[in-house]
Amino acid sequence: MILTVTLNTALDLTYSVPALVPHSSHRVTDLSERPGGKGLNVARVLTALGHDTVVTGFAGGATGTVLRDLLAALPRQKATLTDALVPVSGDTRRTLAVVDAATGDTTQFNEAGPHVTADEWTALLGAYAELLKTADAVALCGSLPPGIHVGAYGELVRLARTAGVPVLLDTSGEPLRRGIAARPDLIKPNADELAQLTGSREPLRATRDARRRGAHGVIASLGPDGMLAVTPDGVWRASPPAPVKGNPTGAGDSAVAGLLSGLAESLSWPDRLRRAVALSTATVLAPTAGDFDRTAYEELLPRVAIEEHAAGAA
Amino acid sequence: MILTVTLNTALDLTYSVPALVPHSSHRVTDLSERPGGKGLNVARVLTALGHDTVVTGFAGGATGTVLRDLLAALPRQKATLTDALVPVSGDTRRTLAVVDAATGDTTQFNEAGPHVTADEWTALLGAYAELLKTADAVALCGSLPPGIHVGAYGELVRLARTAGVPVLLDTSGEPLRRGIAARPDLIKPNADELAQLTGSREPLRATRDARRRGAHGVIASLGPDGMLAVTPDGVWRASPPAPVKGNPTGAGDSAVAGLLSGLAESLSWPDRLRRAVALSTATVLAPTAGDFDRTAYEELLPRVAIEEHAAGAA
Repeated sequence: MILTVTLNTALDLTYSVPALVPHSSHRVTDLSERPGGKGLNVARVLTALGHDTVVTGFAGGATGTVLRDLLAALPRQKATLTDALVPVSGDTRRTLAVVDAATGDTTQFNEAGPHVTADEWTALLGAYAELLKTADAVALCGSLPPGIHVGAYGELVRLARTAGVPVLLDTSGEPLRRGIAARPDLIKPNADELAQLTGSREPLRATRDARRRGAHGVIASLGPDGMLAVTPDGVWRASPPAPVKGNPTGAGDSAVAGLLSGLAESLSWPDRLRRAVALSTATVLAPTAGDFDRTAYEELLPRVAIEEHAAGAA
Repeated sequence: MILTVTLNTALDLTYSVPALVPHSSHRVTDLSERPGGKGLNVARVLTALGHDTVVTGFAGGATGTVLRDLLAALPRQKATLTDALVPVSGDTRRTLAVVDAATGDTTQFNEAGPHVTADEWTALLGAYAELLKTADAVALCGSLPPGIHVGAYGELVRLARTAGVPVLLDTSGEPLRRGIAARPDLIKPNADELAQLTGSREPLRATRDARRRGAHGVIASLGPDGMLAVTPDGVWRASPPAPVKGNPTGAGDSAVAGLLSGLAESLSWPDRLRRAVALSTATVLAPTAGDFDRTAYEELLPRVAIEEHAAGAA
């Protein structure tokens, strides 16, 4: 199975309003709730791809209960999605996306998340170590909730490496910087996260710099331009056949699912990248934010362009 | 005891954000949750005034559970606040106030509320009829949730009158128009609600018109200018000693609590109005939206100016 870790899970709310007018009162005309947090999104895509997946991380309070109920009620896929979230006393956070029906624009509000105690962190470490025993790969995803030390991802990366489980780290800021030093197999920063980490906005330079900081492979997501992969085996650039318009929410999480499933299946780098780019593009095209359009995915997969850089370019 | 009815209860969320910027992402820096809906707010003020109060209406789903838990956890007052909410299968709504910490401005998002079935409405009518047997006064408060017929308040007003319990109706639009026709003892519209009902923005004319439509007494709230009362016993105007600055959220609910407690205690009209104006002014002054500042209330009470209109002016 594949394991995803979401330390700061979220109940993702979406409100539609006729038009967003600051400092006025709005009638919410449409409302949806779904289980969220990056690792949960990655897990949904993995199960849709046919990989049995286990999610861990924290859930607590009334919002945590709703999140777990929604997780249990997700439509059945070819593979299983197992809830191994660790209970916490605090309330799981909500994230709220307010969609302006007139323009389609989204305004986002993110709660901080529960304060996690030292005992709860210890319980997570125990559950994680146990789950690693049967994991083919693990993804560590998203922000840290309050109370968790900034080196937490470093600790989780080291445990995975000791257990011999390939590990992908998808976070940002100081948790990313500290996590990289523990030498994860893969990181998947976007341009902003790379620039924050390395100080450079030049993709190849920044990606190589990130690799020198400890990550074995760095897959930089370049938004609509695809991905740049700097790995021990070479450097590749993968691009979708044409730019697409749509909602980019969740495209990064789909890319993580593509890379992680490819890692678990021991695919070649070009095949992993094809899958990641096709999945993230098919996510932008899907009508519901965070889902992917399966027909589009299957059509895109053979059409992703892969360009290998000169030997030694890494 | 005093009974308040809130057909569309709400979990009131407040988010503080550093500054509201449409179409961007916001970190919620402070978060509060409280049990809401007009009748619940009225009940909080009534218990703080020393009146045992029972709340009924609907609550359901995960949000309804949180609301009832918060209601049970309210700080103890001199009097009891009893939860007699009727369960529904749908989810109690949330309301969200986003407060811009830079300017203090609030942007409001209101969910619609659960769809109430015919059986659930019948259950409410049964519970309400039972509660009326021991009620000294009843307030019917706020909007109707989806599924409830627009004449619902008319039905509740008639049941109260049959049971000999004085009834105050605080709603707006068509539910107010239909409710008035059933001859409630009191209504407490603000200027917008009065204008919507009568087509007039001239306070005395509009208030008299509202009375002719069926309400025995009409207490028009004039915001910072106080209140205008047109009653079977005369016409009064009540004004705070000076205009105040603060958050007007909940000031109308505090006024309802003042009027209803005065009705239950058989106070004179001037004393009821003094209490209502002092309470609503003390609510504007309170640091937390919807609470009232007790010291300010006690200082304001003897200083509210009451002016009686010429005999026959009603």
